[in-house]
Amino acid sequence: MKAYPEPMQRCMEALKGLPGIGEKSAQRILFHLLDSERETPVGLANAISDLAESVELCPSCRVYKQKDTDCLFCSDSTRDPVTLCVVESAADLYLVEATAEYHGGYHVLHGLLSPMKGLQPERMGLSVLEKRLRENEVEELILATPPTSEGEATASFLASRFANIVRRISRIAYGMPVGADFQYVDSQTLSRALTGRRSF
Amino acid sequence: MKAYPEPMQRCMEALKGLPGIGEKSAQRILFHLLDSERETPVGLANAISDLAESVELCPSCRVYKQKDTDCLFCSDSTRDPVTLCVVESAADLYLVEATAEYHGGYHVLHGLLSPMKGLQPERMGLSVLEKRLRENEVEELILATPPTSEGEATASFLASRFANIVRRISRIAYGMPVGADFQYVDSQTLSRALTGRRSF
Repeated sequence: MKAYPEPMQRCMEALKGLPGIGEKSAQRILFHLLDSERETPVGLANAISDLAESVELCPSCRVYKQKDTDCLFCSDSTRDPVTLCVVESAADLYLVEATAEYHGGYHVLHGLLSPMKGLQPERMGLSVLEKRLRENEVEELILATPPTSEGEATASFLASRFANIVRRISRIAYGMPVGADFQYVDSQTLSRALTGRRSF
Repeated sequence: MKAYPEPMQRCMEALKGLPGIGEKSAQRILFHLLDSERETPVGLANAISDLAESVELCPSCRVYKQKDTDCLFCSDSTRDPVTLCVVESAADLYLVEATAEYHGGYHVLHGLLSPMKGLQPERMGLSVLEKRLRENEVEELILATPPTSEGEATASFLASRFANIVRRISRIAYGMPVGADFQYVDSQTLSRALTGRRSF
């Protein structure tokens, strides 16, 4: 089989590096870009390079923000300042936002404690978090790291680190996912759902 | 729910314009690009903009080629010059290539005859194709447009247009897809498989 011309090959490789994009999807996107009017690939390329150029972490909450503008979360005076929710990633933050259940502040760790991958606590921006907890009227720190071993370890670590600084530290609830059948839930989840039962 | 900062929103929209990329996939790719080292988004953006800048159609066979270099197909002296295969798109061409069954030349239409979408014959590069058929020793023109109504109409149109110029004009075979069960094949396909039966 004939190889692609070099620029097409290079674009294929770059596309295949994206999550969820395999050989077939990359090929489909490649030919879509080639077959489109020039504005489509140029617009996409500009949007992606602008992302690298004009998005940065908010130094306070570590959510992504546009450079030279205020953080959309930190500058929002309608948000409740007494709760602070710790999440692993910005993607997780937007999933919490999508629940419309939470209106407080955030701290994004951008990783979890992982001795294997060597992620050290100082990479998680904990000194900034500590400063915010000390200087603001935060009454509750919600640990919303995922229920995996690394997420658990990180939550325990954070809980013990900030135990003396903040009045209440909470962990998101474990239990049955809504709509799930007993047949399809693992026994550990079921066991947690029993332990964490609440009065009806 | 909080909206994304503007550059993130714009990148999301551009990603969602790609085939097979919905809301969730676009979000996953967006955060992957943000969470990666700067080289990942910059490399991808460059690869995509290079595609727009440095890839063009070969004026002869209309396959994509790198600017200022020879067409990989037209310049390849090992390819059989007596057959010429007509395909709808460059993507289809690479699917034919993947069979390793065909070693002749190509002509890419970049569309099919479509009165609805208004694709006129002159958009399909037919004058170039006619010139190639007249000036070269092409003995067979294979019409490999898809077995859809538009693909059929295009094949008929091409067959009648070039009937007096090339000795043999053929159409790819219709029949059962390999591995398919009778239960899952439509009756039109089965009927074509019967009509097109061959001696065992």
